[in-house]
Amino acid sequence: MEPNKLKELLQQVKTGGCSVEQAMERLKILPFEDLGFARLDHHRHLRQGFPEVIFCEGKSIPQIEKIVSCILAMGCDLLATRCVPEVYQAVYKLDSRAVYNELGRTITIKQETRPKTGGQILVISAGTSDIPVAEEAVTTADVLGSQVERLYDVGVAGIHRLLGQESKLSGARVIVVVAGMEGALASVVGGLVDKPLIAVPTSVGYGSSFNGLAALLTMLNSCAAGVGVVNIDNGFGAGCLAHKINKLGEPDEVGV
Amino acid sequence: MEPNKLKELLQQVKTGGCSVEQAMERLKILPFEDLGFARLDHHRHLRQGFPEVIFCEGKSIPQIEKIVSCILAMGCDLLATRCVPEVYQAVYKLDSRAVYNELGRTITIKQETRPKTGGQILVISAGTSDIPVAEEAVTTADVLGSQVERLYDVGVAGIHRLLGQESKLSGARVIVVVAGMEGALASVVGGLVDKPLIAVPTSVGYGSSFNGLAALLTMLNSCAAGVGVVNIDNGFGAGCLAHKINKLGEPDEVGV
Amino acid sequence: MEPNKLKELLQQVKTGGCSVEQAMERLKILPFEDLGFARLDHHRHLRQGFPEVIFCEGKSIPQIEKIVSCILAMGCDLLATRCVPEVYQAVYKLDSRAVYNELGRTITIKQETRPKTGGQILVISAGTSDIPVAEEAVTTADVLGSQVERLYDVGVAGIHRLLGQESKLSGARVIVVVAGMEGALASVVGGLVDKPLIAVPTSVGYGSSFNGLAALLTMLNSCAAGVGVVNIDNGFGAGCLAHKINKLGEPDEVGV
Amino acid sequence: MEPNKLKELLQQVKTGGCSVEQAMERLKILPFEDLGFARLDHHRHLRQGFPEVIFCEGKSIPQIEKIVSCILAMGCDLLATRCVPEVYQAVYKLDSRAVYNELGRTITIKQETRPKTGGQILVISAGTSDIPVAEEAVTTADVLGSQVERLYDVGVAGIHRLLGQESKLSGARVIVVVAGMEGALASVVGGLVDKPLIAVPTSVGYGSSFNGLAALLTMLNSCAAGVGVVNIDNGFGAGCLAHKINKLGEPDEVGV
Amino acid sequence: MEPNKLKELLQQVKTGGCSVEQAMERLKILPFEDLGFARLDHHRHLRQGFPEVIFCEGKSIPQIEKIVSCILAMGCDLLATRCVPEVYQAVYKLDSRAVYNELGRTITIKQETRPKTGGQILVISAGTSDIPVAEEAVTTADVLGSQVERLYDVGVAGIHRLLGQESKLSGARVIVVVAGMEGALASVVGGLVDKPLIAVPTSVGYGSSFNGLAALLTMLNSCAAGVGVVNIDNGFGAGCLAHKINKLGEPDEVGV
Amino acid sequence: MEPNKLKELLQQVKTGGCSVEQAMERLKILPFEDLGFARLDHHRHLRQGFPEVIFCEGKSIPQIEKIVSCILAMGCDLLATRCVPEVYQAVYKLDSRAVYNELGRTITIKQETRPKTGGQILVISAGTSDIPVAEEAVTTADVLGSQVERLYDVGVAGIHRLLGQESKLSGARVIVVVAGMEGALASVVGGLVDKPLIAVPTSVGYGSSFNGLAALLTMLNSCAAGVGVVNIDNGFGAGCLAHKINKLGEPDEVGV
Amino acid sequence: MEPNKLKELLQQVKTGGCSVEQAMERLKILPFEDLGFARLDHHRHLRQGFPEVIFCEGKSIPQIEKIVSCILAMGCDLLATRCVPEVYQAVYKLDSRAVYNELGRTITIKQETRPKTGGQILVISAGTSDIPVAEEAVTTADVLGSQVERLYDVGVAGIHRLLGQESKLSGARVIVVVAGMEGALASVVGGLVDKPLIAVPTSVGYGSSFNGLAALLTMLNSCAAGVGVVNIDNGFGAGCLAHKINKLGEPDEVGV
Amino acid sequence: MEPNKLKELLQQVKTGGCSVEQAMERLKILPFEDLGFARLDHHRHLRQGFPEVIFCEGKSIPQIEKIVSCILAMGCDLLATRCVPEVYQAVYKLDSRAVYNELGRTITIKQETRPKTGGQILVISAGTSDIPVAEEAVTTADVLGSQVERLYDVGVAGIHRLLGQESKLSGARVIVVVAGMEGALASVVGGLVDKPLIAVPTSVGYGSSFNGLAALLTMLNSCAAGVGVVNIDNGFGAGCLAHKINKLGEPDEVGV
Repeated sequence: MEPNKLKELLQQVKTGGCSVEQAMERLKILPFEDLGFARLDHHRHLRQGFPEVIFCEGKSIPQIEKIVSCILAMGCDLLATRCVPEVYQAVYKLDSRAVYNELGRTITIKQETRPKTGGQILVISAGTSDIPVAEEAVTTADVLGSQVERLYDVGVAGIHRLLGQESKLSGARVIVVVAGMEGALASVVGGLVDKPLIAVPTSVGYGSSFNGLAALLTMLNSCAAGVGVVNIDNGFGAGCLAHKINKLGEPDEVGV
Repeated sequence: MEPNKLKELLQQVKTGGCSVEQAMERLKILPFEDLGFARLDHHRHLRQGFPEVIFCEGKSIPQIEKIVSCILAMGCDLLATRCVPEVYQAVYKLDSRAVYNELGRTITIKQETRPKTGGQILVISAGTSDIPVAEEAVTTADVLGSQVERLYDVGVAGIHRLLGQESKLSGARVIVVVAGMEGALASVVGGLVDKPLIAVPTSVGYGSSFNGLAALLTMLNSCAAGVGVVNIDNGFGAGCLAHKINKLGEPDEVGV
Repeated sequence: MEPNKLKELLQQVKTGGCSVEQAMERLKILPFEDLGFARLDHHRHLRQGFPEVIFCEGKSIPQIEKIVSCILAMGCDLLATRCVPEVYQAVYKLDSRAVYNELGRTITIKQETRPKTGGQILVISAGTSDIPVAEEAVTTADVLGSQVERLYDVGVAGIHRLLGQESKLSGARVIVVVAGMEGALASVVGGLVDKPLIAVPTSVGYGSSFNGLAALLTMLNSCAAGVGVVNIDNGFGAGCLAHKINKLGEPDEVGV
Repeated sequence: MEPNKLKELLQQVKTGGCSVEQAMERLKILPFEDLGFARLDHHRHLRQGFPEVIFCEGKSIPQIEKIVSCILAMGCDLLATRCVPEVYQAVYKLDSRAVYNELGRTITIKQETRPKTGGQILVISAGTSDIPVAEEAVTTADVLGSQVERLYDVGVAGIHRLLGQESKLSGARVIVVVAGMEGALASVVGGLVDKPLIAVPTSVGYGSSFNGLAALLTMLNSCAAGVGVVNIDNGFGAGCLAHKINKLGEPDEVGV
Repeated sequence: MEPNKLKELLQQVKTGGCSVEQAMERLKILPFEDLGFARLDHHRHLRQGFPEVIFCEGKSIPQIEKIVSCILAMGCDLLATRCVPEVYQAVYKLDSRAVYNELGRTITIKQETRPKTGGQILVISAGTSDIPVAEEAVTTADVLGSQVERLYDVGVAGIHRLLGQESKLSGARVIVVVAGMEGALASVVGGLVDKPLIAVPTSVGYGSSFNGLAALLTMLNSCAAGVGVVNIDNGFGAGCLAHKINKLGEPDEVGV
Repeated sequence: MEPNKLKELLQQVKTGGCSVEQAMERLKILPFEDLGFARLDHHRHLRQGFPEVIFCEGKSIPQIEKIVSCILAMGCDLLATRCVPEVYQAVYKLDSRAVYNELGRTITIKQETRPKTGGQILVISAGTSDIPVAEEAVTTADVLGSQVERLYDVGVAGIHRLLGQESKLSGARVIVVVAGMEGALASVVGGLVDKPLIAVPTSVGYGSSFNGLAALLTMLNSCAAGVGVVNIDNGFGAGCLAHKINKLGEPDEVGV
Repeated sequence: MEPNKLKELLQQVKTGGCSVEQAMERLKILPFEDLGFARLDHHRHLRQGFPEVIFCEGKSIPQIEKIVSCILAMGCDLLATRCVPEVYQAVYKLDSRAVYNELGRTITIKQETRPKTGGQILVISAGTSDIPVAEEAVTTADVLGSQVERLYDVGVAGIHRLLGQESKLSGARVIVVVAGMEGALASVVGGLVDKPLIAVPTSVGYGSSFNGLAALLTMLNSCAAGVGVVNIDNGFGAGCLAHKINKLGEPDEVGV
Repeated sequence: MEPNKLKELLQQVKTGGCSVEQAMERLKILPFEDLGFARLDHHRHLRQGFPEVIFCEGKSIPQIEKIVSCILAMGCDLLATRCVPEVYQAVYKLDSRAVYNELGRTITIKQETRPKTGGQILVISAGTSDIPVAEEAVTTADVLGSQVERLYDVGVAGIHRLLGQESKLSGARVIVVVAGMEGALASVVGGLVDKPLIAVPTSVGYGSSFNGLAALLTMLNSCAAGVGVVNIDNGFGAGCLAHKINKLGEPDEVGV
């Protein structure tokens, strides 16, 4: 509920336009819409600056269609993650502006005008197999309004590949490091730069990687200070956090 | 090695002031100092904006004294974490400017002039027992140059305690949430605000909290998007990351 | 063995209608029926107030049919959980009164008259994907005789969705909270109300949710007092416990 | 904030006794008191029916004294858990009415008049070493107002010890089972009775009991339906939940 | 190598029928046969009283056929475990005497004459879903020569089902308890009888049963003394150990 | 309750010496004695062939004295495990016949006449540090009436130490293998002999031995068939099970 | 970057053939090639003595084809691991010299001349099911240039199978032990020989083997000194390390 | 038993100097000495090239003195690990040649002449706190006869500290990397050099380092090929394996 609405309500109480009992009831009502299986959180758009993002894994196509339609009807931007091609086909039928990032498994539709940030997010991946998670982070940050740069396949087994990219490292405002297996890349990058760094462990690996646990623990225990870690394979969360940080550096955000 | 030094070296090669072989050797030498048991990383000051921080747990007092003396001699600021009172007494003897945060177990000595940030970091703790970790975050961010505000003991079991603090939440640029037991506070705060949020699980709890594992998993799986997690009880890491993010919002950083 | 039957037996011994040896043998015999692969526990109906519930996962359709037939023949109510559509088709052929809750994957057939409770159980779910488990709890409590209310998709990432539902919270006698991912909803609800609360972690999530472990640990470590936790995805157990508690508040149970 | 207070406030707005701006501010203020290190949650007394309970492990004696004094000053009942004898001595100095349950490590001071429930909670323990946790549950339920009965040392290795106690089992409204090692007692009791059952795993055991993990898993996987589990060694939580359930069966609660 | 063979060899050395060097070589040669992918351990028959048992999971049908043929050619009894129907069809083609226990997934062919033991092994299972593992134990003990009795579906949720079976319990020499979920049955049976008891956890369960881990820990922590535990789902190992124990009670074994 | 007592009771009912109601009450009473904190299980002596064994870890000396006195008064044999020297001194004061096995931390007092078994149990330990657990097994089996032989410090790192002991291996009826670190000794012994084998993992080791978990898993996964595993450091349980098995081979047990 | 290239560059700076700025830029450029999804690490060939090895699991066939073509074009040897038959068919179409080790799931193409080592690596496997991992180690070491000998199916359950192979053990310079289930073979071999030993746990097993965790822990805790462990199922890593060690013993490596 | 001894024995049999029965007995006797609590493995000296090493943790000082005396009497070199100062004092009294490495907690006494290797082992540690484990590796390799070089405190958070040490890296034949926290150093070093690399995780760290588990998993999942891992904190094992590998490069070992 926006402050203005609350002020207006209280003034109606004052002027008698609304009884005390009515006011009490209305104070409890919040703007969300009931789809039966999911309360779409319109309020979130005001509160968080972006409508709900659809995590498609485990949702049926009809469920996804219903949520997509509802978001589109509100005139909001759309971001759906973990989308298999069938989901894309269904969304494309609803709106042919739908863009599918096949590697990152995301679908986006832009309806709102968002100014692009001046500052840049650099998304680094350790290996080829980590790219889907990296691309999810890229698309997320991009749709939210950030400029994003990629630096892929620079794992620590060949550290010179990373060391040759110092201009990319120094040109970014925030860095996202995506790595599976032992996840050591986050520590190495964290030791090279003095920027906010978000580490994303991936489930890439086998045996004692335990589906990403090894990389997760590595990143949490990083000897480089100032590394924030998100869940295994959570490219979306990393992109989201990176954008929030990146936005802080924009001139119109200064002084907030 | 600073770019200027490198440029100078290459120019000496050009002018013959330095032979090719000498240049090759010098290109490999980096500025750190050998204390026998620890290579103090002076270079870090240039690279990361702050000298090495001393993690005192597991170090002997003579070892700590040696590192402290070395940092002080360089004219740098000092931050030592996990300090028992005996460590404070030893450091105080070396330099009576030493300030001890007993709750947060930190020692600080300021020798450098750092401008205070305009933006604010808000450090929130769930329970009384989480305060030591929260204070470690507070001192860290403070010594690095950030303005810091505290909001303690607002755990989710009495959620109204948090809901009454919206002005504090909205006044901060970055938020650090420190919580043990089930660690749910991070998700609740993350759902209320649209800011970069750093979550610190603590080892507070018993039984199936497994020394902080429960809170750690809660935070990593947070349904609120954009939460970066650090290691269990790692107040230092959180303060460090929060400061890096906070600094981005300062006017003189804009456009970087 | 019912008390009356035991009394009768001992009286037969007294009057010589039954020899001591026969009595010794009969004291050991209990009323269950051998289906070859499963001893159907008729005695349970007397002891626990409901016949055996069929957990269908891992049972073949012929096995299920045999147990269903046996329960129906006894005139008991039927509850089967974790039923795929094929199971429903098989049960429907046996008895067309069979009701399938597709979301909750349950089948029910009512043959007994059970008075509906006056008090209400409120089943709350955090996200859309938690609904199957919530529905299993709903159907279980309903078939056992409780009035049940639903409140779905009110996860803590948008806590205002929950805060607007205080009348539902205050109108219930027992509350069941179903949540996956980080499972923080149980703590938040537990902090808002003074009612018995049953928490059901679900396997919804990915990465470090470790198939529900994160939510389970969160709920066990809840800082809200008085939360009872059941197994991951165990909607049936929650519905069952909620009904037992709800029944205590019925006028005819008072004084037990 | 109580409904009456809210009504009154809105009526003041209506009558002009309070400006809109003042009302907005007051709507955000909630009744808790700042002790510096802990916000004592007075509001909780209204919301949850009991003031905050003090978990003494990890708190210093001065911290405990401060909270105790505050609770006593409010005229509330006091319950402190995990108290070593030194804590008792300190509390006794503040108020000689303090009662110490040495086995259960609890301190209680009764200042309020609470009617005793008619219904009974039965607390069952498996072994001698589980008694401290059982006693914590007993004291908690007792101070909250429940009648409590004990049945100790009836572990499943000698199941006849339990089977001889059917009258105790049938006389209770709610049952709490406290067991370490393999924790099988909860399943056995759950199979014998049709009552709400709360299971408390304890850290009693060695080797692969992994400090209570074995008992915890046993109880969560109980084949008896309707078992609610609390954290390892959490006698307080079990007593609290048992009391909430027991209260439902009281005549004056019926129809709620 | 049998003692007689060694004696003979040394005597040949004494008499010059074998040179020292030849003896040294022969002392190193042991009787096994190379199938390329598996050294069939004929020696085992002498040492362990039974030829190698074929664990079929993860072996191809041609591999299984090769091993079966080799065992049959030696005139030994055959036991194959974890056999899908396709394996049975292949073995049946090799030898139509093959007997398939579909529930227990075992194949047996008897070629040797083994006297049946007088004593009995009792195999108890908790639930219907535990029967496959129980049957693997039954077939294993049977083919090795033990008399075996079954007692199925007597889990602790309805403990009277077990208590009515005291004659079966007292008539056995060794007891095998097979249980999944919380695995409490082993402790209950262990408390009722004074016999060697072998506990087999099964992977039956869901959620926090963690594929049998819960039952395994329960059994290892059993408060009943004298319970030996085997791997999760290891009916074969239990049958094997039970037979070795059972054999000790046979008159012709006495005095060994 | 002994069969004779039951028969007598039923005959009293028949002859009118006992009313039906009295019989019903008496059928529920079982012979145990209430010590306040522990129900001493006299019945156990009849059922299990040995009175309760006292696990001293976590019990206070007055508690232990009370239980010891009670067992001695009954004329039973005494076995107490995990006894520190202070416990021994206390028990010695109660009865100077008390024998302390300092290595194995056990106290025994023999009051009953038990025939020694003809067959032998062989207790094997891998390393010096495993001896306390091995000695607990030795004392347990000895006090129960078994002949016991020791074979210590024959770990697999020097496998020839074991291979030279074949006569000891072949002379035993049951074998107990006690090993920490990687616990491989159980598999090696299991491959050499065809006897019932009980494996006891110990908590000896460091790092990834995780307090005995490594040895426990090794033993549960042993490729040698017929190995029964007990809890980490559970020498008592192993001695108990070994004795039950050993007893089966005694001439007077044959045919049971 | 090779030393010669660096020297040349600096000399160009000296002679003015390259400006300081140009030199600074070129010092950052390293020789790798951008395939879009993978930076092929040519530099690795110089640094590590072998081009990148392709881990095919999780890569699409077009991705694999692209990398294979690139390696072949450079004239390097090819090693691809975890190859299903479809991958082999695709690679075979690119180059008919491709050799498929079906058991070990590897593809190799030799284009370079590598001298075979004089010393031998012995690869030992415990069971039939461990052979795929053993073969991966064999192929890896072979393609890198080592002589390799196999000794399969000599698990500790029949330890005589191993003891008869002393000449093979003593003839090798390095030993690789591959074992699943309890993994005890590594300790036994490590106790028999004084050679560098590499242990490879496999995921062979079930239940509490936890996909290789049991074998991994066994090997890490081996009481035999000097065992280096690699990841579960990592035959490639073992072959690679074994070759590096083996090469040290070659005459032309001596004195390095 | 040495080959010569065996040959001699068989010749005695041939010539009648030893009966067949005597030979059979002597073939089973192996050279170890019984200290009561520990069979000192003299045979090991022949088989493994070094006498038994004493792991002092968990052994009493009298036990250690007894083993030390025995080793000294045999004229062997002594290596004891995990020695607190009290152990050193006791050993020093037995032999004043004892050398104590206080950091590495080792005691050594050299009695044998071992040629020093020409090749060098480089022991690298990540942080100051990892030095004790690194020193254990250094002393172990040194006493076995290897030349050892140290490179300490070069963790990846300041990767330039490592990159400046290429001559040390390239001058070594084998590298040991010792690292706690996230353990990433092993991967980075492994990517820089083409040498056998042994990784030692340490228990240095806190929170989710889980006493070294994080570093262990990192090293096992290293993306650098050819890394052999030893147990957490196992400096001894690493030194031992490094020496075995280093020895292979010595001229007199070539051709083995």
